[in-house]
Amino acid sequence: MDGPDSKGLIYHVTGVLFRHGLNIIHNDEYVSPSGRFFMRTEFEAGPIQAGGAADAFDSAALLNELQTTVPGFDEQVEGATKSSGITFRLNPKRKKNIVVMVTKEHHCLGELLIRYAFDELDANILAVVSNYNSLQPLVSKFGIPFHYISHEDRTREEHEEAILRTMAIYEPEYVVLAKYMRVLTAGFVNHFPNRIINIHHSFLPAFVGANPYRQAYERGVKIIGATAHFVNNDLDEGPIIAQNVKEVDHRHTAADMATEGKDVEKIVLSQALKLVFNDRVFISGNRAIVL
Amino acid sequence: MDGPDSKGLIYHVTGVLFRHGLNIIHNDEYVSPSGRFFMRTEFEAGPIQAGGAADAFDSAALLNELQTTVPGFDEQVEGATKSSGITFRLNPKRKKNIVVMVTKEHHCLGELLIRYAFDELDANILAVVSNYNSLQPLVSKFGIPFHYISHEDRTREEHEEAILRTMAIYEPEYVVLAKYMRVLTAGFVNHFPNRIINIHHSFLPAFVGANPYRQAYERGVKIIGATAHFVNNDLDEGPIIAQNVKEVDHRHTAADMATEGKDVEKIVLSQALKLVFNDRVFISGNRAIVL
Amino acid sequence: MDGPDSKGLIYHVTGVLFRHGLNIIHNDEYVSPSGRFFMRTEFEAGPIQAGGAADAFDSAALLNELQTTVPGFDEQVEGATKSSGITFRLNPKRKKNIVVMVTKEHHCLGELLIRYAFDELDANILAVVSNYNSLQPLVSKFGIPFHYISHEDRTREEHEEAILRTMAIYEPEYVVLAKYMRVLTAGFVNHFPNRIINIHHSFLPAFVGANPYRQAYERGVKIIGATAHFVNNDLDEGPIIAQNVKEVDHRHTAADMATEGKDVEKIVLSQALKLVFNDRVFISGNRAIVL
Amino acid sequence: MDGPDSKGLIYHVTGVLFRHGLNIIHNDEYVSPSGRFFMRTEFEAGPIQAGGAADAFDSAALLNELQTTVPGFDEQVEGATKSSGITFRLNPKRKKNIVVMVTKEHHCLGELLIRYAFDELDANILAVVSNYNSLQPLVSKFGIPFHYISHEDRTREEHEEAILRTMAIYEPEYVVLAKYMRVLTAGFVNHFPNRIINIHHSFLPAFVGANPYRQAYERGVKIIGATAHFVNNDLDEGPIIAQNVKEVDHRHTAADMATEGKDVEKIVLSQALKLVFNDRVFISGNRAIVL
Repeated sequence: MDGPDSKGLIYHVTGVLFRHGLNIIHNDEYVSPSGRFFMRTEFEAGPIQAGGAADAFDSAALLNELQTTVPGFDEQVEGATKSSGITFRLNPKRKKNIVVMVTKEHHCLGELLIRYAFDELDANILAVVSNYNSLQPLVSKFGIPFHYISHEDRTREEHEEAILRTMAIYEPEYVVLAKYMRVLTAGFVNHFPNRIINIHHSFLPAFVGANPYRQAYERGVKIIGATAHFVNNDLDEGPIIAQNVKEVDHRHTAADMATEGKDVEKIVLSQALKLVFNDRVFISGNRAIVL
Repeated sequence: MDGPDSKGLIYHVTGVLFRHGLNIIHNDEYVSPSGRFFMRTEFEAGPIQAGGAADAFDSAALLNELQTTVPGFDEQVEGATKSSGITFRLNPKRKKNIVVMVTKEHHCLGELLIRYAFDELDANILAVVSNYNSLQPLVSKFGIPFHYISHEDRTREEHEEAILRTMAIYEPEYVVLAKYMRVLTAGFVNHFPNRIINIHHSFLPAFVGANPYRQAYERGVKIIGATAHFVNNDLDEGPIIAQNVKEVDHRHTAADMATEGKDVEKIVLSQALKLVFNDRVFISGNRAIVL
Repeated sequence: MDGPDSKGLIYHVTGVLFRHGLNIIHNDEYVSPSGRFFMRTEFEAGPIQAGGAADAFDSAALLNELQTTVPGFDEQVEGATKSSGITFRLNPKRKKNIVVMVTKEHHCLGELLIRYAFDELDANILAVVSNYNSLQPLVSKFGIPFHYISHEDRTREEHEEAILRTMAIYEPEYVVLAKYMRVLTAGFVNHFPNRIINIHHSFLPAFVGANPYRQAYERGVKIIGATAHFVNNDLDEGPIIAQNVKEVDHRHTAADMATEGKDVEKIVLSQALKLVFNDRVFISGNRAIVL
Repeated sequence: MDGPDSKGLIYHVTGVLFRHGLNIIHNDEYVSPSGRFFMRTEFEAGPIQAGGAADAFDSAALLNELQTTVPGFDEQVEGATKSSGITFRLNPKRKKNIVVMVTKEHHCLGELLIRYAFDELDANILAVVSNYNSLQPLVSKFGIPFHYISHEDRTREEHEEAILRTMAIYEPEYVVLAKYMRVLTAGFVNHFPNRIINIHHSFLPAFVGANPYRQAYERGVKIIGATAHFVNNDLDEGPIIAQNVKEVDHRHTAADMATEGKDVEKIVLSQALKLVFNDRVFISGNRAIVL
């Protein structure tokens, strides 16, 4: 849930869960400095009765009761419903459906494929889309559809249109940019609000844009990093989900940094995806809240 | 609070706080695999009424209501009180009173003194006790009593007796071993159950005992570390509060590791003390729960 | 080269290289506290003459001149050759031949296979050997021979004999234990002195032996780690090549630690292998010198 | 030494040292991608003869021989000296003389004072200069002159003139900005080329300029850092000597990040100073080479 903070929110919400006989496994809250309240509660229903389904508890009734739980809100006020302004989401634990986009580099894609093959990704990779065909052999080893959609001889809009047509086949919940090296237009991004996750090969906001390792070398930094973030309209500016770093020294050329950085990139991306796919990430303005 | 887990605990406790008009600032819970429930709730009372003290809200009434909050417990059962088994503690935010024990090394002590001088320690250093007098000049710069209690010509018991007599003057809530290099007997430790915090100069449980950097050098490790932990009867075996590490390489002699390690030791100790002094650390068997 | 330290060693050796017209790319030395000198010099020959091979410079002559470069040594002394005690090795840059041994876990093996598939391993994986057949499907995706050699119904010696017969086919320069979960006998290890590299799932020497994550959980550590090391006769006691760590907290169960630890294990193993395969690791007693 | 790379440099230089009977303790070289050669050699003279001073070996003769060591250079060519373009510096191991500049924050200054008091700084703190007087009590504990030079009612130039007059008294080899929060003019900086070291409270080049922790909070980063660097004319743009980082999460306000960051800042500054004061840092364009 997220919405404006007020006294008693935890009490009211946990009361609903208690009355429904649900057992809280993990609970975490956060109130932003601007007074916005975020809460994530992981709970489990009791043993299912004979003949009952796994979600035998009444989700609709639970959500409805949650919506009206804050006193004084959601009551009929002169014919209209006064809203609490709080959004509740009820996410059963299940794998998310994703499409992965890549260009030529294999390290992040390879990481995702291996995890997927051994059921460690918390997601189903429905397809891989690339503007080059060089990673097709790798993808085919894992029996996943590979769509080669070249950007050559196409305008940016035509290219993205072609990708969107492919996306329409799979209807992914998330699009993962696993080193997709082309900038996406706002038109494309708007199809997947807060549902595109990118791995950027620098410790953002240092070195936005192209060739971050070249920039890092020239600036003579002693630490490099990688950043997994949601993509919004401003390049490299979306909410940061996870970051990690690695020490380098003056002996590292820009190419050495790129090689070393790959290990950081793929692990950071995997960690960020795990958080997102387990519904642990909330968006607060341009910040990602991980509960 | 901590005690056996049961359904509805968060709801019942936050309900008490809500009815008392208290505002939860931060809340965190943990259920151990063995079914023990830990919860730390940071809350603030509203603005104090005219004539009221800062703790004008009725702590005794609050604690009493908390004790009886879990339904079916703490009721009169055939003349006796059936207890919920839950312990509640109400800690107003305030500085803790401590005594620091040292031997000859200054780095951890210096760190604590500087923080104390600038009101960043969340504690009052009542006195420093040492079995050598070499750190007296440093301590005296900060206007803190220094007790030089030599272990020479004394049995271990006599020495500890002398220290305990000094402790009796100050009645510290916590004893901080800031590189006190002598083993304490169970007799001494039992005076301060879970109230002695030690900094050990290795990444425990690697290299327990004496000369950990020498051991680390000989084992050829590539990372060294430091561990802040509570002291119990088994040497270097108490619950770990905080740890940190630093990379080394084959060029580091045991002495180099010791020098490098000092930076880790003093920061880890400070971080652990901050957690303890802010009542964020719970003990669960031999593990420290940080909420 | 490695051997007893004496004044002028760098001068004498670089003099030989200079007179042969070789260009030093990178040079690193180390003198151990016990007075042993290690030096690794990376150099390149000039452009090859018409008709000449890549190693047209005379390796044998170079090695011979190096052997006799320290004045006063290697001279005929009363009919015998007085040796400098220095060992010189001349390693052309090339991929090493390896066999990988695994049990059931895929994460380290998957990492090696992906790197190998994209020519990033500095090694040829000749075969994978396992005491289970569960990883065969993964290995077969990459077209590498997989040998399933069960330990069931075999004594330890019979099992190792069977593995050695398979090794004899491939004659690997290095054996990589990528989560091979059985202890190897001294008899086996002696076939590959300082040529077996293991990844241990703890920050050695903490938690030697079985179930290190279970031990780590019970000790309540705040940081877990992984260690890549050479295997010698004492379990988990060989020279450490690389280590890395990751923060955990009280919420991590032993199983969570194991999951988190896998990311550390596979990266540490890869980094260690890169160092070994590039001839950057020297052994000094029980310590690994990385130049 | 540093200068243009050419074949045989290590050989020629170590030959001079060998002929002078000097023992190399540590040697490190680096060739930049643009072909510049850097070498740092740590050596010790043998036991001093009766009546000889500690630097009884002839430094002038050694430097002269080094200058002429590269064949074909430094010869008389038509009446002029053809230079090798190589600069040699001979630095006896000794403490550097420094002045520390601060504003109001004590953590870096406190760190330096404690290290200085226990002879761990590799430098003599001749004086502390501040534009506020709030840190005078701390400095006076350590018996070091404190110069309060307010910037109020003074133009920037007048203020810097006053500071320079104070510097003229002490003639420091290095000026350490231990959280001096005013921008220095090029006029001031030019008095101390590559001799001013600053600690910046961000992981540069992220968050240049004012309020980096505020910027970091608003960007929602998951890691904060600190950077020690030489000061040149461009604000926050000089060669980076050392950096380090620390994890944060969404709960950290800008103020929390500032508090946490202080531990990183003071350690990074100390580490950078240790490198500089031991003559281990070379400048290559805008990059710092640490040998």
